[in-house]
Amino acid sequence: MYSFKNDYSEGAHPRILNALLETNLEQNDGYGEDRFSRKAIELIKGKLETNDVDVHFISGGTQTNLIAISAFLRPHEAAIAVSSGHILGHETGAIEATGHKILSVEGKDGKLSPSDLQGVLNGHPDEHMVKPKLVYISNSTEIGSIYSKSELQELRDFCQRNQLILYMDGARLGSALCSEENDLRLSDLPKLVDAFYIGGTKNGALIGEALVICRDSLKEDFRYHIKQKGALLAKGRVLGIQFLELFRDNLFFDLAAHANQMAGKIRDELVKADIKFLTHSPSNQIFPILPNAAINELQNSYAFHVWEKVNADSSAIRLVTSWATKEEEVFGFIEELKRVL
Amino acid sequence: MYSFKNDYSEGAHPRILNALLETNLEQNDGYGEDRFSRKAIELIKGKLETNDVDVHFISGGTQTNLIAISAFLRPHEAAIAVSSGHILGHETGAIEATGHKILSVEGKDGKLSPSDLQGVLNGHPDEHMVKPKLVYISNSTEIGSIYSKSELQELRDFCQRNQLILYMDGARLGSALCSEENDLRLSDLPKLVDAFYIGGTKNGALIGEALVICRDSLKEDFRYHIKQKGALLAKGRVLGIQFLELFRDNLFFDLAAHANQMAGKIRDELVKADIKFLTHSPSNQIFPILPNAAINELQNSYAFHVWEKVNADSSAIRLVTSWATKEEEVFGFIEELKRVL
Amino acid sequence: MYSFKNDYSEGAHPRILNALLETNLEQNDGYGEDRFSRKAIELIKGKLETNDVDVHFISGGTQTNLIAISAFLRPHEAAIAVSSGHILGHETGAIEATGHKILSVEGKDGKLSPSDLQGVLNGHPDEHMVKPKLVYISNSTEIGSIYSKSELQELRDFCQRNQLILYMDGARLGSALCSEENDLRLSDLPKLVDAFYIGGTKNGALIGEALVICRDSLKEDFRYHIKQKGALLAKGRVLGIQFLELFRDNLFFDLAAHANQMAGKIRDELVKADIKFLTHSPSNQIFPILPNAAINELQNSYAFHVWEKVNADSSAIRLVTSWATKEEEVFGFIEELKRVL
Amino acid sequence: MYSFKNDYSEGAHPRILNALLETNLEQNDGYGEDRFSRKAIELIKGKLETNDVDVHFISGGTQTNLIAISAFLRPHEAAIAVSSGHILGHETGAIEATGHKILSVEGKDGKLSPSDLQGVLNGHPDEHMVKPKLVYISNSTEIGSIYSKSELQELRDFCQRNQLILYMDGARLGSALCSEENDLRLSDLPKLVDAFYIGGTKNGALIGEALVICRDSLKEDFRYHIKQKGALLAKGRVLGIQFLELFRDNLFFDLAAHANQMAGKIRDELVKADIKFLTHSPSNQIFPILPNAAINELQNSYAFHVWEKVNADSSAIRLVTSWATKEEEVFGFIEELKRVL
Repeated sequence: MYSFKNDYSEGAHPRILNALLETNLEQNDGYGEDRFSRKAIELIKGKLETNDVDVHFISGGTQTNLIAISAFLRPHEAAIAVSSGHILGHETGAIEATGHKILSVEGKDGKLSPSDLQGVLNGHPDEHMVKPKLVYISNSTEIGSIYSKSELQELRDFCQRNQLILYMDGARLGSALCSEENDLRLSDLPKLVDAFYIGGTKNGALIGEALVICRDSLKEDFRYHIKQKGALLAKGRVLGIQFLELFRDNLFFDLAAHANQMAGKIRDELVKADIKFLTHSPSNQIFPILPNAAINELQNSYAFHVWEKVNADSSAIRLVTSWATKEEEVFGFIEELKRVL
Repeated sequence: MYSFKNDYSEGAHPRILNALLETNLEQNDGYGEDRFSRKAIELIKGKLETNDVDVHFISGGTQTNLIAISAFLRPHEAAIAVSSGHILGHETGAIEATGHKILSVEGKDGKLSPSDLQGVLNGHPDEHMVKPKLVYISNSTEIGSIYSKSELQELRDFCQRNQLILYMDGARLGSALCSEENDLRLSDLPKLVDAFYIGGTKNGALIGEALVICRDSLKEDFRYHIKQKGALLAKGRVLGIQFLELFRDNLFFDLAAHANQMAGKIRDELVKADIKFLTHSPSNQIFPILPNAAINELQNSYAFHVWEKVNADSSAIRLVTSWATKEEEVFGFIEELKRVL
Repeated sequence: MYSFKNDYSEGAHPRILNALLETNLEQNDGYGEDRFSRKAIELIKGKLETNDVDVHFISGGTQTNLIAISAFLRPHEAAIAVSSGHILGHETGAIEATGHKILSVEGKDGKLSPSDLQGVLNGHPDEHMVKPKLVYISNSTEIGSIYSKSELQELRDFCQRNQLILYMDGARLGSALCSEENDLRLSDLPKLVDAFYIGGTKNGALIGEALVICRDSLKEDFRYHIKQKGALLAKGRVLGIQFLELFRDNLFFDLAAHANQMAGKIRDELVKADIKFLTHSPSNQIFPILPNAAINELQNSYAFHVWEKVNADSSAIRLVTSWATKEEEVFGFIEELKRVL
Repeated sequence: MYSFKNDYSEGAHPRILNALLETNLEQNDGYGEDRFSRKAIELIKGKLETNDVDVHFISGGTQTNLIAISAFLRPHEAAIAVSSGHILGHETGAIEATGHKILSVEGKDGKLSPSDLQGVLNGHPDEHMVKPKLVYISNSTEIGSIYSKSELQELRDFCQRNQLILYMDGARLGSALCSEENDLRLSDLPKLVDAFYIGGTKNGALIGEALVICRDSLKEDFRYHIKQKGALLAKGRVLGIQFLELFRDNLFFDLAAHANQMAGKIRDELVKADIKFLTHSPSNQIFPILPNAAINELQNSYAFHVWEKVNADSSAIRLVTSWATKEEEVFGFIEELKRVL
């Protein structure tokens, strides 16, 4: 049974495993002070076209979110997230476990806008309530949508006017940046957000995310927070080597583009068949609404999440493609789709 | 310059990288529910000669310690550790960050005894103080010593009589169990401690520790805690595959035995030269006391930690060997030692 | 200007201040181990008709909530509250600051029902989400409604079937129990909830709430939690003396009944004038919907909260009466109401 | 049996209870925004001879310490305290429960010096350890000693050079300032420490401490922290009225002076009898070393703590006097002392 359940079903891109092999017996300092990590940071700063950022490698997304948010906030300050935000419902209260409330906003298409934020600020005027301070957004979002450059610029302006921190979860940043509808460049981000991470786990790495801190006041002592949360790997090289390989050339983007293309092929076919979608998602996650009977048949040969019931007869499913998704499997799936629809 | 600074200077044992390669493109469920992790758990239970334990794979030692201790304790309960204990001084307050005080005890040779614990209990009689609840020990300890079976049995009995949880940090458990002076078997541990971990990172794995929970009341809902602390890797297979390889045959023990043998060769030579040691350490860490002049010369060709000043003219250094330590480098180091002493 | 803003605008009932005066220079042990506190606990157990509960005195409501909830829950467990629940929006993230998420449910009339709870359980099936564990309800609620005995019994049954803890915030429990529509007795509560508190601050005391823990497994070591959160008053007598006075005879209920009667007089008048209410509230808080012009005029002589805009021309206001509300002021207010409506 | 166990055995000074009575039925805003609290803050600023401080009233000492320290520190930062410091051993891990380690230093006479602090800084050079940030001192100390102005100035200078926050626990500040050996004025403190509190509970108030924040960067949003920790009393007036009475004239100092005089009378008598003391304590706590037989006899008529065993035959006891200690009881105790020695 082939799986479209997520983008972390396989191991790592072969070039990454190779890089681990080739450097394996070289002795290096621990805790991210190895030469690979240093070089990878240099490469990422190059792609960001600025030296004015700090880059830290951390094993996974939940960990990155909880370390960053708890390091950035004072005890009485809260995060704001759209109701589908990963930190709200899918991290087992990881942020609250560090002491911070997350304020949920309905939003639209999995995204936040300045008017959403204004509503939260209006509702939290004094010390009897938490102080909203950090705006959490994901790009691409949990439901596959992406932020345009102007949407981000508007959030940026609003946050600056209201002393808010703008933080972007980039678990699937590669997919967002390589979307056909995207008008953002990676190097735009340091000017638009206060911190973000470049997701490796879901884009070809074995493990690893690269947190980029752009605002100076958030940089101080950050390694203490990584260590305190148990995330400063003794063999930090494992993270450095992978990001070095991803950013040594265009590999990071090539992998994301492949994931998007695979989703695109399925999406195109569904559009042709007049299938509707739960949401507009020009990235590597799509949410077509299918008749339940068709879903049942598809499940005989393919694994995927049934996302939500839409009406008595049909449901939205989630299909996720990745750097590792094989074109022939996509074709096979499309054939099967045609058959069951 | 060859390094004896620690046991995580290299990558992973080649067999482990190979195992990652061979299984790389097989699709598997995420979050540790893959077949490799399940098989690795089965193997470990086999080596422990019991099915009555829960096994969880976690990336690193500090993370394992903080997840386990915060999951096991209620808010008013504290851990007890010997003053050289890793959680006390070298984890950036990771345990306190989860809300728990650590009570420090002087101990002896890096180890705790029932009388140490009795002293702590005597000093904490009521609700104006924390309630001592979890006893943290390391084996081998932070200064290379090991617990004998009878010492552990005495701690076990004391903890049982006093409703204390006995937890063993096994970052270097392999080295302890393979020490020439050791009389413990891995399969003794479930009967002696309430929880412990089998350290992979310092014994040939890329990353990864296997936490074993022996006491039933500590098992419930443990995966929630792993997730909440950001440690449930999406690609949990990365941990499972490594432990599967380590415990498929005798690899885990072979690697630890090699590390001990390398340290043993240096130790023997130093004893012959009438060099004294800071502490008795029959494992892969040794702490010889050398003249400062000799230390300076050694540092031209070898990297190691100067542990502490002993008197005006001499200091203790720490030498750590590992699964990856090359015998020819040990010989070279011994030659250099002879020259400078 | 006379205030109907809340039920804590004055000091304490004179009998309470008197009791403090009369016992003032008697030496007593600190931290709640004085004879007054012990006697007050005995009296409360008498009113509850059971010795099988633990009673603790704590200064205020937010403090009681945060100590109880953090003591009762393990790190991965969450509270459930109706969206108007005090702990959700008006305690500055006090519960989250102890590490626990609060799951918000819409509810009805400020109250939770089993079907609300079932919905939360359905949405939280596994370790990627928090584990719902404690149900937080208020009686009377934040919008003045009260729970009937059968509603509570249904919640009780649901919680028991689903291993949930049922906790009642009784900041205004007196008002609830003395409502004309109430069918609950104070002595019913130990059988219906796992823990609750009897609010003193809003019912005649200077400060102080009496937390009652009914379920055995929640009782252990509770004083440690009070102390750890900074709430074990050195002069615990201050709390004990007050509750002794409140429960020495019927004072606690008399004060609540007075508050309800004062609200009742205003309510009756408003009903006569065909004024609608935001919610049905048979307790000491009422929420009439008035024309904005009338509100403006009333504000010249009376202080109260404008609760929410209802339409372009009218808003709901909140009127709160208390043990200290003077009947002549209520009459005056009614006259003014008639004038402006 | 008369008690010298502590300075919180009685209620409040009669003038304070009177002030509560006289203002009892006046309606006031809640949460410390009443006119009494505002006036009390004004008076305290007057005594401090500066308007450049923020003053907040909080119920008790542990609560004040935990709110202040957790508000002032970032997650990776730690407090430093002398080994006898109240926060270290007698607050049930209240500081650790907010996430912060306390580093213990031996010190001398219950006090810290710059060289103690330098030692801590030397031992905590990097992110593998917590970052020492806040220096916690008590004046008078837990063992009755006091800081001289020059000692404080030296700490101040050291803290400034090393970016440390200097925080003074003033649970017994009155006694320190009224000691015959004291050379500090209350108005010196804003120039010497970053924050401190003026203890009311142990100097005549029913409950209450006045936290004074001197350093600007520590002032922001402080009321949020008070609320979040459950310490913003609905009837904040209860605290304001008391401090207004204590600082309306010289009452605060008169009460402390009385406590010291009572201790002084006992101390003088013991010195005459050639009794030695555990520590030099020119405040309201003294620690004479008495033969065990004498202690046993004294315990027939007086309550006090036996502090520690000194040798086989004698122990140090702790005698505490207060604003409420009666002179005739002191004389009686002295007579009894003479009889048993």
